[in-house]
Amino acid sequence: MMRALPLAASLLLAGCAATPPEVATTPTPPSAASPTEAAKPPVALQYLYGSAEAAIAVRATNARIADYGVWRIKQRPTDGVILAAGATMDVPRFEPCGNKPFAAVFDADETLIWNLGPMRWFAEKSTAFDPKIWDQWEKTGAGKAVAMPGTVEMVGKLRAAGIAVIANTNRTAANAKGSEDTLRAAGLGDFKHGETLFLMGDDVGGSSKDMRRAAIAAKYCVIILAGDQLGDFSQQFNVRDLPAATRTALATGPTAAALWDKGWFLFPNPVYGPWEKLGWDDTFPSDKNWEPK
Amino acid sequence: MMRALPLAASLLLAGCAATPPEVATTPTPPSAASPTEAAKPPVALQYLYGSAEAAIAVRATNARIADYGVWRIKQRPTDGVILAAGATMDVPRFEPCGNKPFAAVFDADETLIWNLGPMRWFAEKSTAFDPKIWDQWEKTGAGKAVAMPGTVEMVGKLRAAGIAVIANTNRTAANAKGSEDTLRAAGLGDFKHGETLFLMGDDVGGSSKDMRRAAIAAKYCVIILAGDQLGDFSQQFNVRDLPAATRTALATGPTAAALWDKGWFLFPNPVYGPWEKLGWDDTFPSDKNWEPK
Repeated sequence: MMRALPLAASLLLAGCAATPPEVATTPTPPSAASPTEAAKPPVALQYLYGSAEAAIAVRATNARIADYGVWRIKQRPTDGVILAAGATMDVPRFEPCGNKPFAAVFDADETLIWNLGPMRWFAEKSTAFDPKIWDQWEKTGAGKAVAMPGTVEMVGKLRAAGIAVIANTNRTAANAKGSEDTLRAAGLGDFKHGETLFLMGDDVGGSSKDMRRAAIAAKYCVIILAGDQLGDFSQQFNVRDLPAATRTALATGPTAAALWDKGWFLFPNPVYGPWEKLGWDDTFPSDKNWEPK
Repeated sequence: MMRALPLAASLLLAGCAATPPEVATTPTPPSAASPTEAAKPPVALQYLYGSAEAAIAVRATNARIADYGVWRIKQRPTDGVILAAGATMDVPRFEPCGNKPFAAVFDADETLIWNLGPMRWFAEKSTAFDPKIWDQWEKTGAGKAVAMPGTVEMVGKLRAAGIAVIANTNRTAANAKGSEDTLRAAGLGDFKHGETLFLMGDDVGGSSKDMRRAAIAAKYCVIILAGDQLGDFSQQFNVRDLPAATRTALATGPTAAALWDKGWFLFPNPVYGPWEKLGWDDTFPSDKNWEPK
């Protein structure tokens, strides 16, 4: 059985800085699927795409985003929520608003849309993530991805309040039309490459979204950042070899804690992510090991 | 590889009314673990127990609970958030507060504590959930379960505000002492069976928590319900043979939408849950099927 998407997909979609050594040494092979294993999707996919519990969590996050946006613009903020160049979580500074129009910046995959087509295909075939297949998906997926629960309503409320809705995704610039079509077909309206759609390849930053965020902040007062992985907020969380515990501490420390649900909004995605490199002792502190008698 | 906990565990922990036919016809066998498969935990466990992303989501939920509780008691509510007997989501009525003291009612497993000990053990052994091993865990797990991120602080804030913190869990009454010890060792303070700890076997309701909720509501004005599965809010969501789409519609309709984050609080748990029975077409609407050329 496939263990959701392997690390290659995480890196592609999350914008990690570099390939950690685990990828080279332990590639995830396609597992032989027994008839029983093929009878149902992997548990993380069942949860995210099928459960009422995940639908509630996603809807509630969308409701928080819409409420926050409508409220926030009334405060006429002087700063946005995109970290300024050189700023750290210890010494945060944010891109200023000036007289720029308001914007909310979203990752696309598993933030605005659920990629039902290829996620089912990869899982049902018990095959590893394949960048060539993903590339086809970017080109031809329109109509087979869905807006997440409550996302159409959220996007509509932000736009009605005069807040530009912008996507910053690691889909590739070469497939811009496919991604524009996919977002439109999901009911999310128009995203235009270079204006409200920013893609990998738009600049020399590769999978890091920082340069694209800076380009957006030059034109907009960005009051909302939303994503499913920390690279959607700052590339600082994706520094190579950053230990998992340090990454969590950075992301839950005072600076970040003041931002979550107050400008930075995180969607649940247990299906793929940079945490796929975690080993047993990263996931379970060894002092909590237990075994039955 | 184990696909997280099979349905038996979901039913035990979630309080489902009855065993659906899937359990009898497709038991989850232990999968043969290849060396590669054993190298890392299953993706849902990596995410929940190891990722910064899940830690952020759990901390944010705990912060919302604490803020809501402190705010809510100032409103002197006339009704709590436990559905009254006979009330439905279509025609909701709630247990009245009267002059009763305030309380917040939590599920225990994957709501107050993460069960790191047996979750690692089951996954590392690539073995199916085993109720006998879980029974040992209830008895001997003290010190090997951890309070979830931000939970100690949340519980402290509620108690400081004069709100009783009560657990309503499907751990068994026969192991009351083990569960009291486990919660205390996790830093969550004292829970006392029959007073602030309600267990399966306390009444004739079996794994349904409704009777226990009614018993708590007879003594307390319950302003907060929190859990990781819908059975922690009402047994109506666990009615036998309730189609998945109907369950989601009930849980995201107007009555429920007015309660989420406003009295009802849901924690993420992609590791086990009642949605484990979902098949391919339940998880992925067939009109979204896609395949590469």
